[in-house]
Amino acid sequence: MIAQGTFPVEPWTVREKSLDLTLLGSAESLFALSNGHIGFRGNLDEGEPHGLPGTYLNSFHEDRPLPYAEAGYGYPEVGQTVVNVTDGKIVRLFVDDEPFDVRYGRLSSHERVLDLRAGTLVRAADWTSPSGKRVRVRSTRLVSFVQRAVAAVEYVVEALDDVRVILQSELVANEALPQQSGDPRVAAVLTSPLVSVEHDSGLAGATLVHRTRSSGLQMAAGMENHVEAPGRVEVETHDAPDWARTTVVCVLAAGERLRLVKFLAYGWSAQRSQPALRDQVAGALSGARFAGFEGLLSEQRAYLDDFWNAADVVVEGDAEVQQAVRFGLFHVLQAGARAEQRGIAAKGLTGPGYDGHVFWDTEGYVLPVLSYTAPQAAADALRWRARTLDQARRRARELGLAGAAFPWRTIRGPESSGYWPAGTAAFHVNGDIAAAIERYRIVTGDTSLETDGGLEVLVETARLWMSLGHHDADGLWHVTGVTGPDEYTAVVADNVFTNLVAAQNLTVAAKACHRHPDLARSLGVGLEETAAWRHAADAVHVPYDEDLRVHQQCEGFTRRPEWDFAANSDYPLLLHAPYFDLYRKQVVKQADLVLALFWFADRFSAEDKARDVDYYERRTVRDSSLSAAIQAIAAAEVGHLELAHDYVYEAASIDLRDLHHNTGDGLHIASLAGTWLALVNGFGGMRDAGGRLVFNPALPSGISRLMFSVRWRGTTLCVDVGHSQVTYSVRDHDESVEFSHGEEVLHLHAGDSATRPVVAPTPLLPRPPQPPGRAPVRRGADH
Amino acid sequence: MIAQGTFPVEPWTVREKSLDLTLLGSAESLFALSNGHIGFRGNLDEGEPHGLPGTYLNSFHEDRPLPYAEAGYGYPEVGQTVVNVTDGKIVRLFVDDEPFDVRYGRLSSHERVLDLRAGTLVRAADWTSPSGKRVRVRSTRLVSFVQRAVAAVEYVVEALDDVRVILQSELVANEALPQQSGDPRVAAVLTSPLVSVEHDSGLAGATLVHRTRSSGLQMAAGMENHVEAPGRVEVETHDAPDWARTTVVCVLAAGERLRLVKFLAYGWSAQRSQPALRDQVAGALSGARFAGFEGLLSEQRAYLDDFWNAADVVVEGDAEVQQAVRFGLFHVLQAGARAEQRGIAAKGLTGPGYDGHVFWDTEGYVLPVLSYTAPQAAADALRWRARTLDQARRRARELGLAGAAFPWRTIRGPESSGYWPAGTAAFHVNGDIAAAIERYRIVTGDTSLETDGGLEVLVETARLWMSLGHHDADGLWHVTGVTGPDEYTAVVADNVFTNLVAAQNLTVAAKACHRHPDLARSLGVGLEETAAWRHAADAVHVPYDEDLRVHQQCEGFTRRPEWDFAANSDYPLLLHAPYFDLYRKQVVKQADLVLALFWFADRFSAEDKARDVDYYERRTVRDSSLSAAIQAIAAAEVGHLELAHDYVYEAASIDLRDLHHNTGDGLHIASLAGTWLALVNGFGGMRDAGGRLVFNPALPSGISRLMFSVRWRGTTLCVDVGHSQVTYSVRDHDESVEFSHGEEVLHLHAGDSATRPVVAPTPLLPRPPQPPGRAPVRRGADH
Repeated sequence: MIAQGTFPVEPWTVREKSLDLTLLGSAESLFALSNGHIGFRGNLDEGEPHGLPGTYLNSFHEDRPLPYAEAGYGYPEVGQTVVNVTDGKIVRLFVDDEPFDVRYGRLSSHERVLDLRAGTLVRAADWTSPSGKRVRVRSTRLVSFVQRAVAAVEYVVEALDDVRVILQSELVANEALPQQSGDPRVAAVLTSPLVSVEHDSGLAGATLVHRTRSSGLQMAAGMENHVEAPGRVEVETHDAPDWARTTVVCVLAAGERLRLVKFLAYGWSAQRSQPALRDQVAGALSGARFAGFEGLLSEQRAYLDDFWNAADVVVEGDAEVQQAVRFGLFHVLQAGARAEQRGIAAKGLTGPGYDGHVFWDTEGYVLPVLSYTAPQAAADALRWRARTLDQARRRARELGLAGAAFPWRTIRGPESSGYWPAGTAAFHVNGDIAAAIERYRIVTGDTSLETDGGLEVLVETARLWMSLGHHDADGLWHVTGVTGPDEYTAVVADNVFTNLVAAQNLTVAAKACHRHPDLARSLGVGLEETAAWRHAADAVHVPYDEDLRVHQQCEGFTRRPEWDFAANSDYPLLLHAPYFDLYRKQVVKQADLVLALFWFADRFSAEDKARDVDYYERRTVRDSSLSAAIQAIAAAEVGHLELAHDYVYEAASIDLRDLHHNTGDGLHIASLAGTWLALVNGFGGMRDAGGRLVFNPALPSGISRLMFSVRWRGTTLCVDVGHSQVTYSVRDHDESVEFSHGEEVLHLHAGDSATRPVVAPTPLLPRPPQPPGRAPVRRGADH
Repeated sequence: MIAQGTFPVEPWTVREKSLDLTLLGSAESLFALSNGHIGFRGNLDEGEPHGLPGTYLNSFHEDRPLPYAEAGYGYPEVGQTVVNVTDGKIVRLFVDDEPFDVRYGRLSSHERVLDLRAGTLVRAADWTSPSGKRVRVRSTRLVSFVQRAVAAVEYVVEALDDVRVILQSELVANEALPQQSGDPRVAAVLTSPLVSVEHDSGLAGATLVHRTRSSGLQMAAGMENHVEAPGRVEVETHDAPDWARTTVVCVLAAGERLRLVKFLAYGWSAQRSQPALRDQVAGALSGARFAGFEGLLSEQRAYLDDFWNAADVVVEGDAEVQQAVRFGLFHVLQAGARAEQRGIAAKGLTGPGYDGHVFWDTEGYVLPVLSYTAPQAAADALRWRARTLDQARRRARELGLAGAAFPWRTIRGPESSGYWPAGTAAFHVNGDIAAAIERYRIVTGDTSLETDGGLEVLVETARLWMSLGHHDADGLWHVTGVTGPDEYTAVVADNVFTNLVAAQNLTVAAKACHRHPDLARSLGVGLEETAAWRHAADAVHVPYDEDLRVHQQCEGFTRRPEWDFAANSDYPLLLHAPYFDLYRKQVVKQADLVLALFWFADRFSAEDKARDVDYYERRTVRDSSLSAAIQAIAAAEVGHLELAHDYVYEAASIDLRDLHHNTGDGLHIASLAGTWLALVNGFGGMRDAGGRLVFNPALPSGISRLMFSVRWRGTTLCVDVGHSQVTYSVRDHDESVEFSHGEEVLHLHAGDSATRPVVAPTPLLPRPPQPPGRAPVRRGADH
């Protein structure tokens, strides 16, 4: 965990005031820069000390064997693992003859600032070398949102004594990493994953081209260094298969400065040739040079101004949540902005956690935010899914199923899950993808995604569900043998979330076919098929315990034995108890039935929701970072606004406070997105089911004002919530928007605003307790 | 598969009339010799060609890593694998300067005979060398039942032309084996698993001592060679770390013979020192030499005469089943006779299949036979389980459970299963062990096993069940999250077989504590605890489908979707379909509910049984070799005697016809035992539930007479069944036995006999069909 106060609470920045080597790994993730295509961990410029060096290119991966103690049919034998690519961030400094290394000499001041509006990481350090020479270093790093293949570093050394200064600006491939696996085959794959193809240098720049051994991918990294020095300066560059180095030597008198601007460009491809890749990188470097470092900075700020203009969330009364929601939005944007038909991984491009895989987090947590704040990025992520449809079709065939079965975890499409009960069996990912496609259409009004592969995904996932589900003798439609979001309950019948997401998938697919009859016909969809989809959806079974008057997360769930928290409350439970026991007990890792209450809000009465939240709160241990935000939304809806505030704070803190002790492996992008969801869907009470935009806002006592904007069909609707009233306004010209405030339908034109009273919901039941030791940190007022 | 007629149908032998190199591996398993301590595969004397060389010592194993693509709490990280130990079977022959190798020259005749009464493998071969010299070789091999550490080979060469003959009698460690794993760590462990500790030789004998690298076991193998030759003969011995060789050279004129007798001795220990082991082997060799080869042969025959006298089964009308049941009994005896507190593995000591592991097969299939035919061996196997109780206790603790959790698969006690849904979750193994302990007591009347660890096992398994099960609001007792015998249905609630075996375990443990109050008290068992056991057992839930009027193999089973045999009937299904789909459908790998009908016969009415058999026959694919025998018993009970005959034939043929295409990896000992079960429990209608011995015999049309004996509390009861009558007789002196013929209680004294009419049961339902392609081969009459 990171102690409170480590990073001062500031509205638009995350600031590190001193260097704590034990927090290096976490800080590298928090300070990561990315545009969705290139990702730089926040490593120190000089490369070390480090928690974990990390430079990533979206989807650039190596294949690795997946071993099994006992193999089974359909188990994937090859997994995909993100590769740490050529590191271009490195600028080493020598002061006289001593390397600048914070572990030696004296670091009299150190500060790093992640600026969420500038899109930069700035570092300032005053260092005295072991022999007593003082320098001041200031570096500014960016990964450009505007020029997708470009990153840049400005590195300025100011002499505080007379010194000789040497800078080494480098490209380094195959950096040594901590052991990542006990399996020697896997270790072999991941040690030196890059094979040199070409290396080349000029006076002050170089290009390295590498390929992977097994996955057949090729990448190029290029640098160009510009030097400004007060007097004589020598610049030369060497290159080798796995490194290239531009060396700058000069002498500085006290008060003089050496400035290095390093432009970096990256490219990779599974198809393009080595010369094409090399030239692609050279072209990107030309574009960067043409803009210049100041140009890159101003482009970056303009891009982010645009984003924040429509996406910013203002939280008054809770400065930590204010900082966290912006931090979260910034990283969500970084993860997806320029992914451009590649996936958005669970860790974005901030670390190697989960092997760099994409999960349902993308469609379940990230795209609901991006659809409302950066819809083009949402569309791109869904186009990526559509591009992997053939792989999903083959996987379905392999499993003996119809349609397409998208992977539980993957980088480029193939199923890479090595444990089927919490992998292949979690078929809800297919419904989550369909839901995201539908939400994108509803929110943007843009139907081009449907015609550009989206409809085909809806049709093939609908077909999957038809082969997964069956009707019983009473005509009810069931889905059996699957795993829902809760990973402490697996391979069950009639998981409510899965059943409802399947039913929605079937309905949405049928309607989409109706909208695109020619396209549907070309996919072989006839009226009989869509009728069958609608019938199954209408007949979907939602198990309910008549005695306890609560919904069952899955068939029989509420009749299972309870978890014995007195005997085992070591969290996360999965590290202290076998799946065997977790699976058969009433213990919930993460919101599952409660997620269904949010996603399918119209399916449940207010009383259902109150009783269900009460029941599942007592059994949910939040061992997943995906849970707190959803629990916040559900708690807010049933009137537990203070509990919701606690959960919002938890979701907001997961990385800034390292609550799960693994921020060093990369950020929890879905939880960061969840902070937005918790505020907007929770306290804003926003729902969009069935294409209707509805707000039921209400604030906890600790938040005095919540202001957010959503893009709805091209228009930006601003919502400004206080304790007693809410004001809706439309910002854009020539546009109008229809939505509901509670039951009242409003229709606002550009420049209009409407103020309505806020009516906080009255909870039907008292605030529920959580399992022992799992109450969230109190943030809201105690009642 | 092995074609019908490959081995002639003979009552007391299995004979190979010619050498088919494609069947070498299967023949090596079929012709394996073992006493339960030492196992020799039926490799040719000269070592090659071979399917798989194999020499095993019960429980002598190496540890190996168990890899997981995704690890989980409680997954065993180290597995155990049987090791091919020092091979003492090898006798190489040179004729002039050419090695005797059946792949070269001309094999003009070849015969091998496994003699079930002599307990020997005899081989006779006439061979002409490539240069035209003719010899006749006759070898006789035995692994002694009487001298547990001893084996011997008599090797006789008769010259048919004048030849120079060289014999090399060898010990060879670390024989090269086919690749056993794609995992390089595992391959590393199993390539050259033995490390030399000591090697030593005399004039005509040698000893090799080795240890394993990781499991910390030490073994010694010794040989002593005796040579008889007509003229001058030279004998010398060399030794090296991994081999020792006694070389015999002489010249034979046509008609002259060279005879070699090779005594072999083996020992291993985890504790005893190198000198102790070396001397142990030397001592065993002395014992063998003292008996001489003829002495060993006669001891062997006397031992087997004793066994057959009480255990033989006569089947008239079906000669193949006659041969098979004796073949099966012989191998069951070989697997267990001198195991002496080591386990009885699924493959016995006939091959490396299943890594040499012990499963529930032992208690479920092998011990029910041994309890009635060689009860001391049954007691020894159960004492072995009791000796592993502390490991089982630790495993239960690790899993968060009370009592003891015995391993699903192991060699010496630790859980070695790498897939928990079909491993750890199959807790019924604990109830199976308890049942075997209880059966041993019932059948033998011997309570010493209970006081020698048995009661402790009963108590600790009862405690396990109490922590696995729970009462619902209606007071019913459930066991959830477990896997029953059917491996195509996993991690379910209220598997009937598991629930009933658990209830029986609880009841039996409570009664045993009542019989041994002091011992029970010393184990901390009070009256409250046994009362709780009885209450749970009395309240056990047995799910029943009221609409279909059949029992549910587990809760909800009969409401699951049916398997689509039109889409997938490639057997075994597990090689062509994912567990995901198998688990959620109504498709049954092996008798499970049907096994419960047999084990807990008193729990089900005749109509239940008829309906249940009918229901499950249609859904059981018999992809396990454990199924046919049980289906035979159930079919016989419900009156489908011809179907039962088909299944008996299938169980009997599994290895002799290689029905599962893996006999080469070792014999299916449980299925071999199953042939006896199918005849005695099926056509003999024998049941022993609750301590009452009952017979309800009835024969199919193709079997005219079935005669078998059972040992019941020290008395041998002979049962001679014909189509119209059955005669019971007691053979031993001064003994009497009480049993029932149907409802009639009989009490016979030594020398008495009683004849009663046989009343074949009338089936309530027509003969059921099996899944497509899974009807057993017709053996019984068609009706």
